[in-house]
Amino acid sequence: MEPFTKKVCRSWNVPSSQFAKNTFNPIRSIVDGMKLTPNPEKDMIALSIGDPTVFGNMALPVEAEESVIEAVKNKKFNGYGPSFGIEKARAAIAEYSSREGYTITAKDVVLTSGCSGALDLCIACLCNPGQNLLIPRPGFSIYKTLAESHDIIVKSYNLLPNKSWQVDLTHLESLIDDTTAAIVVNSPSNPCGSVYSKEHLIEILNLAEKYKIPIISDEIYEHFVYSGNTYYPIASLTETVPVLSCSGLTKRFIVPGWRLGWIIIADKNNVFEAEIRKGIISLSQRILGPSSIIQGAVEGILTKTPQSFFKETIDFVETNANMFYDNIVRIPGLHPVMPQGAMYMMIGIEMEKFPEYTDDVTFTEALVHEESVFCLPAKCFQYPGFFRVVLTIPRDKLLIACGRIAEFCKRHYRDGSGGGDVKVNGSN
Amino acid sequence: MEPFTKKVCRSWNVPSSQFAKNTFNPIRSIVDGMKLTPNPEKDMIALSIGDPTVFGNMALPVEAEESVIEAVKNKKFNGYGPSFGIEKARAAIAEYSSREGYTITAKDVVLTSGCSGALDLCIACLCNPGQNLLIPRPGFSIYKTLAESHDIIVKSYNLLPNKSWQVDLTHLESLIDDTTAAIVVNSPSNPCGSVYSKEHLIEILNLAEKYKIPIISDEIYEHFVYSGNTYYPIASLTETVPVLSCSGLTKRFIVPGWRLGWIIIADKNNVFEAEIRKGIISLSQRILGPSSIIQGAVEGILTKTPQSFFKETIDFVETNANMFYDNIVRIPGLHPVMPQGAMYMMIGIEMEKFPEYTDDVTFTEALVHEESVFCLPAKCFQYPGFFRVVLTIPRDKLLIACGRIAEFCKRHYRDGSGGGDVKVNGSN
Repeated sequence: MEPFTKKVCRSWNVPSSQFAKNTFNPIRSIVDGMKLTPNPEKDMIALSIGDPTVFGNMALPVEAEESVIEAVKNKKFNGYGPSFGIEKARAAIAEYSSREGYTITAKDVVLTSGCSGALDLCIACLCNPGQNLLIPRPGFSIYKTLAESHDIIVKSYNLLPNKSWQVDLTHLESLIDDTTAAIVVNSPSNPCGSVYSKEHLIEILNLAEKYKIPIISDEIYEHFVYSGNTYYPIASLTETVPVLSCSGLTKRFIVPGWRLGWIIIADKNNVFEAEIRKGIISLSQRILGPSSIIQGAVEGILTKTPQSFFKETIDFVETNANMFYDNIVRIPGLHPVMPQGAMYMMIGIEMEKFPEYTDDVTFTEALVHEESVFCLPAKCFQYPGFFRVVLTIPRDKLLIACGRIAEFCKRHYRDGSGGGDVKVNGSN
Repeated sequence: MEPFTKKVCRSWNVPSSQFAKNTFNPIRSIVDGMKLTPNPEKDMIALSIGDPTVFGNMALPVEAEESVIEAVKNKKFNGYGPSFGIEKARAAIAEYSSREGYTITAKDVVLTSGCSGALDLCIACLCNPGQNLLIPRPGFSIYKTLAESHDIIVKSYNLLPNKSWQVDLTHLESLIDDTTAAIVVNSPSNPCGSVYSKEHLIEILNLAEKYKIPIISDEIYEHFVYSGNTYYPIASLTETVPVLSCSGLTKRFIVPGWRLGWIIIADKNNVFEAEIRKGIISLSQRILGPSSIIQGAVEGILTKTPQSFFKETIDFVETNANMFYDNIVRIPGLHPVMPQGAMYMMIGIEMEKFPEYTDDVTFTEALVHEESVFCLPAKCFQYPGFFRVVLTIPRDKLLIACGRIAEFCKRHYRDGSGGGDVKVNGSN
């Protein structure tokens, strides 16, 4: 045995691990690096925060509140449950998520600390360091954060703004290689608000089947689709491709802070039986699942919340989307892409028409400085030249924000030809 | 650019990651491997589960219940907070944990999903793959599980059963080398129920200071000490050694399922300023903290629960400990070690006096089979030859369990000399 090297009297020097250093949120670092000094004459309007509770205009269903109070009073939900969640909650989620031809049972459901906890488990279970994970661009930054912290390589496949942000299948296919561990699919999506058709989801599944790559489907915006669109869980459209489908109470029930997420192990083909199912359950033991009180409330929340609650929420957001679109599309130099669901809209900036600004970051910085309107530069989603707005804002603020954005653009728009009002990306 | 190797038509084969495979709970695998077939004539009594809610005799304080209901009705705790926890909750924990000469502020507190979530963050932040972490033996298995999943090497330092499970300092020192990243200290402890004196904690701190090794202190049983003992947070006894102190509501408030834990960054010497503080906050972004509802309730829980609640809980458990000890110490071949706190007692088995059984696992298996009493073999804590009992059990069941254990031992005890009732490990 080699003698230990003792290190008496060295000085204190405690570095953080590579894992901690690699756990890096690009949104945080971009936003923290921005000079956000609002115009003191104008109230700040933050269109940047993807939290529907933040304006106070959108509230959770009263049934959700009641279900939590019942769970507390019940006194049966204070102890440890299984790390993957209590049976009653998993059964309720299975029932809630099943549909014709797509039957989920309690044993296919693993509860997690929010949908980000679900994505963390799925990515950590499916991918080894050095393997690659395919993620959408533009896309939610957490996929990259979670993967890269584990030294998993991220490759971004393009979404097509002119095709309502559908996947560029040729590009996706070109990225697949022998070390591709999984494909992340996100529909309805953040930041685009796209909702993929059944046909498009099947095209993605066909690629997954061709190369035998499992899918991680981020469906936290499930059911959150505007009129004329239909939500399909991608797992419901395949008999062969194994899917880990991630969702939670967060968006639909407007309780993001409650941290109740889940994974559905959708695997008709029994591909995940050998290792993945066990791996996910092992990983769930690290933090022992979401709060038991919320677990105890899940059944009530899912079964008692009336359809009218969802309809009102979506109607409100859809109307906001239409109003936003109609206002923004008239602004020379801006090109909104109409979403089909979720809570966001992406807006393209014709950068050459705003020569004072080098990119979406400096453009949105100046918009804060002059108009006190904060939109997230889409650099945060690996998609410079766009910005993202949230659509859950109260209507009066929405209209004020649109007016201010219009003023700002009018002031800074430079175009020899005098025009620019071209709707390139509008879709329905 | 190297051409991609395409893998069309390979068959489905999805292995789990090494990280998932390495996330391994030894208790689970030992218990799952046991033949647990109770005697159908006798009710099962499980002395194995470290969950004080499991027998129904110990309930959370009514103030905790009320605080959660208030937080729900308040409607302000539904959105995303900072990933490291809302200010109000962190301030309440800082106030609750401060004492003379040991002042904690809200910025030193990071909320986590239970104390296991806290330990996960601390271990993942302080240690790199290949470095080593020193953990107690016997000790709670989660340290090993969390560390080894990140390829961190675990080295166990011995605790001394004849000295109330104090640390064998010579052994601890012998394990320290240049790649030692941290020392885990656990007092009051699971599974031993030991409570370290001020002097002993200072001896441990002196070693940490000598070799400049930070401490991760698992203090989930803080304040849970029997009469005549005093609880000291180890961080309160040092000016120089940086400590990450982990605790939560779990044990003291009897709400393990709620998953509200915390880390206190205790660092008078500013050693953690350079990297660790930031690293912990980065890692907290992976799951975005515990449920906002429980966060909203923390202040009320910590400030309103009366001292009488804690006193009653501890009195109950302490009386159980004494009764258990008095009964078990009279049984030839068994050697209980009297705890000073927490909820457990370790009982040594003189294996040579029970020649039918090869080890603590087969001994406890047989105890289930014949007497329907399930005690956890201490192999689960890397300490064969002992078993652990939980002390939160209702008194009538405790007495029945003691009687059955006595019967079992009487039946299987083999001793030529006819004796064996030697109290080797009793301590006060």
